[in-house]
Amino acid sequence: VVELYYWPGLPGRGEFVRLLLEDAGIEYVDHARRADGMKRMLALIAGAGAGLAPFGPPFIVDGARTVAQTALILHHLATKHRLVPEDRAVEALQLQLTIADFIVEIHDTHHPIGGGLYYEDQKPEARRRAADFLAARLPKFLGWFERVLAAGDGKHLVTGVPSYADLSMFQVLAGLEYAFPNAFERIASDIPLLMELRDRVAERPRIAAYLASERRQAFNQHGLFRHYPELDP
Amino acid sequence: VVELYYWPGLPGRGEFVRLLLEDAGIEYVDHARRADGMKRMLALIAGAGAGLAPFGPPFIVDGARTVAQTALILHHLATKHRLVPEDRAVEALQLQLTIADFIVEIHDTHHPIGGGLYYEDQKPEARRRAADFLAARLPKFLGWFERVLAAGDGKHLVTGVPSYADLSMFQVLAGLEYAFPNAFERIASDIPLLMELRDRVAERPRIAAYLASERRQAFNQHGLFRHYPELDP
Repeated sequence: VVELYYWPGLPGRGEFVRLLLEDAGIEYVDHARRADGMKRMLALIAGAGAGLAPFGPPFIVDGARTVAQTALILHHLATKHRLVPEDRAVEALQLQLTIADFIVEIHDTHHPIGGGLYYEDQKPEARRRAADFLAARLPKFLGWFERVLAAGDGKHLVTGVPSYADLSMFQVLAGLEYAFPNAFERIASDIPLLMELRDRVAERPRIAAYLASERRQAFNQHGLFRHYPELDP
Repeated sequence: VVELYYWPGLPGRGEFVRLLLEDAGIEYVDHARRADGMKRMLALIAGAGAGLAPFGPPFIVDGARTVAQTALILHHLATKHRLVPEDRAVEALQLQLTIADFIVEIHDTHHPIGGGLYYEDQKPEARRRAADFLAARLPKFLGWFERVLAAGDGKHLVTGVPSYADLSMFQVLAGLEYAFPNAFERIASDIPLLMELRDRVAERPRIAAYLASERRQAFNQHGLFRHYPELDP
């Protein structure tokens, strides 16, 4: 059984791990939903476990191994459970690391000065950063992923193979639509293959069951993807 | 022969790859130093190569394989050339991905609003972000890496094993000292094991030879690590 540690009350980066676990049908304990989960998580971050302590969540404890860093957790689980062919593992991880870069920039639209400060303490800066993000970075990242699909089989980021990168892209697109509904509506017609990928992932039987379950958390103002109308004119 | 593609004129993220290649004695072509390197690099980013095009540099072409994302390039080379024992590969990559997160935050001290804008167009925001970085993030990251050493053999981030993570940490410490000499001087006494690691890496024969060669580029105002006195009071 995989033990997942993450902050309670927000989908955040933990959700990328949950989507893989749910889609692959891997049994897991979600400590974000347990009364003592936070306490155990902080103890492990403080070094209570064996081996390398995580810098922060999400991380998993999988038997004797503790693995942190979202993309690496996905790579580790995909390798162990043979979810991605061995000779495509580097490609999947490269895609996921590009998604990881994208996510940092999405997060920083509302926290351009510091993650430890409140949004309310960095609103003018957030407005500038979000404007630059929507004008320059959002089209650059989404355009790149759209071209990856167009250059491949049109359906999977790792061409020919369903992978965790598709699941993560589904989550990114869902999060962007929540956070920036106006900008997302404007860009949607430029990314038809990504929109189809998103819909296709949502229809995967285990993902559909997960999304309909109470385990799926709604986006809210505590995660990566936050909806502040002033950042999405 | 490994072909390395990166921007000319700055050490940047390409330097992490160079340090591994130099330390391992792997033959490589550095396209950042070739007259047509930039043109070839941009063509590959535009999709001229086989398989997944890189989102951006650095990337390597290693036989039939193109690999992007700094941490993944290091992981790929270390795996292929058996530079890190197989059962420590996840640990090394986890450390490197934490260094990658650190580097983004270091970069964003001078570019908190957008990488496509000039520093001069985001100076007040840079001042706020750098202050938060120096007060909160620099001690958090360096403290974590110092504890990793203290909890292990005291000498290698992947305990017991020299790895690319050590080489990258050397580069991060050198870059921080260049960018933030005042802050670095204040924090140096809190990170004795990291300071020793830095000196030990610099003395590795191939690294020492590289650092003394004209292949090693000095830090400057075009890279990740930039020295703006107003950001380092």
